[in-house]
Amino acid sequence: MKKLINSPDTVLDDALAGLAAAHPELTVDLANRVVRRAGGPRPGKVAVISGGGSGHEPLHAGFVGPGMLDAACPGEIFTSPVPDQLLAAVQATESGAGVVFIVKNYTGDVLNFELAAELAAEEGIEVRTVLVNDDVAVEDSTWTAGRRGTGATVVVEKAAGALAERGASAHEVAAVAERANAASRSFAVALTAATVPAAGKPGFDLPADQIEVGVGIHGEPGRRREAIRPARELVAEVVQTILAEHTLTAGDQTLVLVNGLGGTPLLELYLVFGEVSARLAERGITIARSLVGNYVTCLDMAGFSLTLTKADPELLELWDAPVSTPALHRL
Amino acid sequence: MKKLINSPDTVLDDALAGLAAAHPELTVDLANRVVRRAGGPRPGKVAVISGGGSGHEPLHAGFVGPGMLDAACPGEIFTSPVPDQLLAAVQATESGAGVVFIVKNYTGDVLNFELAAELAAEEGIEVRTVLVNDDVAVEDSTWTAGRRGTGATVVVEKAAGALAERGASAHEVAAVAERANAASRSFAVALTAATVPAAGKPGFDLPADQIEVGVGIHGEPGRRREAIRPARELVAEVVQTILAEHTLTAGDQTLVLVNGLGGTPLLELYLVFGEVSARLAERGITIARSLVGNYVTCLDMAGFSLTLTKADPELLELWDAPVSTPALHRL
Repeated sequence: MKKLINSPDTVLDDALAGLAAAHPELTVDLANRVVRRAGGPRPGKVAVISGGGSGHEPLHAGFVGPGMLDAACPGEIFTSPVPDQLLAAVQATESGAGVVFIVKNYTGDVLNFELAAELAAEEGIEVRTVLVNDDVAVEDSTWTAGRRGTGATVVVEKAAGALAERGASAHEVAAVAERANAASRSFAVALTAATVPAAGKPGFDLPADQIEVGVGIHGEPGRRREAIRPARELVAEVVQTILAEHTLTAGDQTLVLVNGLGGTPLLELYLVFGEVSARLAERGITIARSLVGNYVTCLDMAGFSLTLTKADPELLELWDAPVSTPALHRL
Repeated sequence: MKKLINSPDTVLDDALAGLAAAHPELTVDLANRVVRRAGGPRPGKVAVISGGGSGHEPLHAGFVGPGMLDAACPGEIFTSPVPDQLLAAVQATESGAGVVFIVKNYTGDVLNFELAAELAAEEGIEVRTVLVNDDVAVEDSTWTAGRRGTGATVVVEKAAGALAERGASAHEVAAVAERANAASRSFAVALTAATVPAAGKPGFDLPADQIEVGVGIHGEPGRRREAIRPARELVAEVVQTILAEHTLTAGDQTLVLVNGLGGTPLLELYLVFGEVSARLAERGITIARSLVGNYVTCLDMAGFSLTLTKADPELLELWDAPVSTPALHRL
């Protein structure tokens, strides 16, 4: 295994120290592993908090900042953050206006966020939880009951963060997050397996000419393995698979995320976006907004995911709202 | 070879079609392979133009937009853009206020930009050329006489673009670009070799535990190969190597770019940044600004480069100036 690390045991702490050094506008609580906006709780503002296993960077810490998350809790690589860590994030950000947890649908995450919400309730803090479950590849998977949460997390966190910034209630913020999730569907393809530092070898064996169609963001198995094909064919199938599980139809507008899984060059991601664009145009679906790059990754995995969100004026306005985070910046 | 492409012959055109679809704010001239800001020449504004072989995305097309480049000319992968292509970029953007070419120091690029400048001169358009040559790893290399141009290109293009946006003269824009280059030094380490689609296999053989220290952004050989080491040791050596060729000393301020070569997770890049930060602090050098991510890549190569620019008030102000491009956005 060749990685830019000091030791598999210290990867997360060392990376968080680097994040802190690179982003003085964030407060990185290394003891509790909470990354949050500098300054304390914001009176009148709902605190939007997310988190999950590390290895998906920039998710979630890269989305902390004005207009998006108040705090993120990174767990060990591919491991859920613990309840005490999440409670520390709540305590550091809640102002009495309420808290919204955004949780990708993995069993460990769901459980630990739930426990944290109970701990918060004991302190008189009400937490609403929104599950993200956009991946149409499989029902139930290695670490999930129901659909997995993947690329749509970016859209959900952006929408919730933008609405919270305007002083909306916790009920309203949770509702728009649920709506953004319900409007989104994703599907991913892996060309290579990721190597978790502590494991020291790729998470699964993928022959030199094979791809994993429908892979999860931890390398969970997808629908099948097959030989690599031209991007045009592969993307056409991915678009069709997503649309079969989507309400998007001719005349609709969509927000498109072509997301790299970590090891795929931007050149290829733009090529994929071009194919997505052509396939959607054939079906009369208009791309209203788009994002191309590495946003929800799986360490060094080569491959991509596609997320299509059915757009409406409110979601587009929230998408366009100012945001200032390490990974998304638009003012 | 597993890549998200249709055919090795059409990678660039297909990717440019995707770039055009993703960024309606850019004009992508597919016939001439010129990516430029929408709208015609801007009266009174110097046109800042760059380009080079593809495979280094987001460089250069990802830096086209207000506050940075007026146009970029992508060549085939790892191949210089041709003079006619560069001339088309000049014709589409120059307004009579002059043109500045920003050219990474590779023999083919230098030659083709020079020929383009001569063609422009025949049309009465004066072009000034600034060479970027920040890589201290080697003097002379596979495709270069003198030092190679790498990560500092981002700093040079940002400084020149910001000054041009304010209506500075071509002389002033070229001067600040030269100053930004002279203030910058870089060094890169590869953990894996990149695979050019047309070649179909990695550009060089690197054993499973070996790294290439001082690699170029096309996989050109560096100073030596050695076994992978903890990031702390590796980064300490890289910092020391750069500083040995730099005027940066205790009390100075620096702009730091920790750049991924394409296949390295952001988690590792932040870890590297943390180590850079610690080593600079020991020497009394203050990090004034920083950037962590994939900016000057080598397709799917795993590894990183470090660029240190000695900062002064003018360079920092230009760095902070508004910019709106696909890869850098700050308003």
